[in-house]
Amino acid sequence: MLIVQKYGGTSVADAERIQAVAQRVKREVDAGHQVAVVVSAMAGVTNQLVEHARSISRLHDAREYDVIVASGEQVSAGLLAMALQALGVSARSWQGWQIPILTDDAHAKARIEKIEVDTLKERLAGGEVAVVTGFQGIGPDHRITTLGRGGSDTSAVALAAALEADRCDIYTDVDGIYTSDPRIVTKARKLERITYEEMLEMASLGAKVLQTRSVELAMNWGVRLQVRSSYNDEQGTLVVGEEEIVEKEIVSGIAYSRDEAKVTLNRVMDKPGVAANIFGPLADANINVDMIVQNISADGKATDLTFTVPKDDLDRTVEVLEGERKNLEFAELIADRNVVKVSVVGVGMRSHAGVAQKMFQALAEKGINILVISTSEIKVSVLIDEEYTELALRSLHHAYGLDDD
Amino acid sequence: MLIVQKYGGTSVADAERIQAVAQRVKREVDAGHQVAVVVSAMAGVTNQLVEHARSISRLHDAREYDVIVASGEQVSAGLLAMALQALGVSARSWQGWQIPILTDDAHAKARIEKIEVDTLKERLAGGEVAVVTGFQGIGPDHRITTLGRGGSDTSAVALAAALEADRCDIYTDVDGIYTSDPRIVTKARKLERITYEEMLEMASLGAKVLQTRSVELAMNWGVRLQVRSSYNDEQGTLVVGEEEIVEKEIVSGIAYSRDEAKVTLNRVMDKPGVAANIFGPLADANINVDMIVQNISADGKATDLTFTVPKDDLDRTVEVLEGERKNLEFAELIADRNVVKVSVVGVGMRSHAGVAQKMFQALAEKGINILVISTSEIKVSVLIDEEYTELALRSLHHAYGLDDD
Repeated sequence: MLIVQKYGGTSVADAERIQAVAQRVKREVDAGHQVAVVVSAMAGVTNQLVEHARSISRLHDAREYDVIVASGEQVSAGLLAMALQALGVSARSWQGWQIPILTDDAHAKARIEKIEVDTLKERLAGGEVAVVTGFQGIGPDHRITTLGRGGSDTSAVALAAALEADRCDIYTDVDGIYTSDPRIVTKARKLERITYEEMLEMASLGAKVLQTRSVELAMNWGVRLQVRSSYNDEQGTLVVGEEEIVEKEIVSGIAYSRDEAKVTLNRVMDKPGVAANIFGPLADANINVDMIVQNISADGKATDLTFTVPKDDLDRTVEVLEGERKNLEFAELIADRNVVKVSVVGVGMRSHAGVAQKMFQALAEKGINILVISTSEIKVSVLIDEEYTELALRSLHHAYGLDDD
Repeated sequence: MLIVQKYGGTSVADAERIQAVAQRVKREVDAGHQVAVVVSAMAGVTNQLVEHARSISRLHDAREYDVIVASGEQVSAGLLAMALQALGVSARSWQGWQIPILTDDAHAKARIEKIEVDTLKERLAGGEVAVVTGFQGIGPDHRITTLGRGGSDTSAVALAAALEADRCDIYTDVDGIYTSDPRIVTKARKLERITYEEMLEMASLGAKVLQTRSVELAMNWGVRLQVRSSYNDEQGTLVVGEEEIVEKEIVSGIAYSRDEAKVTLNRVMDKPGVAANIFGPLADANINVDMIVQNISADGKATDLTFTVPKDDLDRTVEVLEGERKNLEFAELIADRNVVKVSVVGVGMRSHAGVAQKMFQALAEKGINILVISTSEIKVSVLIDEEYTELALRSLHHAYGLDDD
């Protein structure tokens, strides 16, 4: 088998952890497998490098930023290759530009376009472990690019796709995907399998185990992902196509995100084009609007509009809208940071009615007021007051029969 | 003018120091000069990276070592490019493999073979500052190589030669080359000029301001070096060809090195080939023998042989010689770490007699016993007991009329 493994920052945090990773890689090699390993920077290093860059200049050249932050993975790749050699395992490190991992020119948030794997394949077939720097590649300008935070997941999946690997194991500090956050929902269960689409929703809804883009990529290329712990040998969670899951759960998990803020515009004139007048300027300012709900007013002349934006963008959002006040003719703008988005996710929803109804009912029974609702094919999300987060998660987990008994 | 500047680790130790360097570069740009800057890693970073590598494995692959330690300069180059841009100076960072700086394949102690400067020249002519990672290049195996500790000096000189720069300014934490170590000899004077050959002797005799190889390179290519401080604006010391120094000092400086140890073999059989039998095995063990003196014994049958080796290699030296004891038939091996090598250096010696005599006399007057003597065209070195270091340096500095009054 050809296996791609990816280790996050905590898994390569120091010499001892790196040596443990080397042991793990050696086991697969001893079992006769070909192994390519993608590594992140040692825990804390990337933050420190970003801090260095910020201390020089807040508004900096993304190309120089990439040069600086990409150095972290270079170090951990070299160290892991050394640790493998010390165990008698043939290994070498590869930087993004050496393979090369070709990306577009969007520095600091580049996308992988192609990975030249001929040499790598040869070396792997010859029994050499390839230790590859995650998070980075080389752009058309012949300069180092990085893929954005969490980009090593994407590197691993892209490499697995290019190498046509049999498996892509993502080693992290949690041992799999849970039905909900186990720190809050003590009865949360580890899932044996989850579909790409569910994982995608979970990731974008706040479950930070995998980078969203890496899941998209895995889905598009049919890469079998496994999320597992680098601290033990337990099976993790397989992320696979829907066809591989015979008995589909109606709801697979309950996710939540504290990253959004709510904005309400009171008594906006209800006339054609008003939504465009509001959301156009926000789009121009590169602000991502998520949930939107519009109430028609009693007199039919004005309307209340509520939507969510990332908390980090709330100040800018208020600024942009106040700047458009004359155009928009709203009575009042109300911003609220104390909200949480709670979502139930499951591919089984497609064939089962009443999933949303059960959610509303469970929340109502606990006296939790729903501020905004949004739905997609495989998820229902509600915005509620932040103080109800724990109560809502536990109630929903129970209501959908997910509790581990 | 085209100027190459090199900044050492303490000159780029933090954001504030990097911003000060950027200001200094800007001044040259504003004066209409083209500037290429070679940077070391931030102070302490390289040691930390070496420590990481050692904690993984003592005997490690030099190719992976290079990958790890080269990351330090990558960071400081990116940061300085950012700092320049923040001042409105057009700049970009260049890694060794991007230029490329081509080296041989001797990883961890590579030699620069060629620097492709066409693109760089174009960019410089267009007004862009080139910030180049010191200490590294790319080998014929298409992997990162490093030049050995202090290698950034060599990078700067090689770049200056390839670019045919008008000047190569080496910024460091001292403000020039002194007639002797000012920490010991308070009357030491900063030299305005020194010849390449003198600098070479000084560097190899323990003056750690410039890497020896960088001086050789500067001499071979006629690169005008200036050693100066990054903490002030004073003129430093120019390192130039002999023809540029009209009034040559007989002695330019007094250097010393505590890095050597003395080994004496008593009553070695005095027969043909004995020296080869002793120094052959040491050469095989890659131990550098420096000063050698042989006394003929009274009976003409046995001889005493004394020589010096680097202190770090003393244990191995003893081991090697004890292993050869049967062959060598010496009576006793005496090793002594408490010695210092003191040297007087000056191109004027060539045309002046009596320089060595003055040295022996000055030391004798202070009751300092000379253990070993060695001479070259422009220097006289003596080995003495370490406890006389300060006394010897001050006496010689005075005897040769170097004192600053």
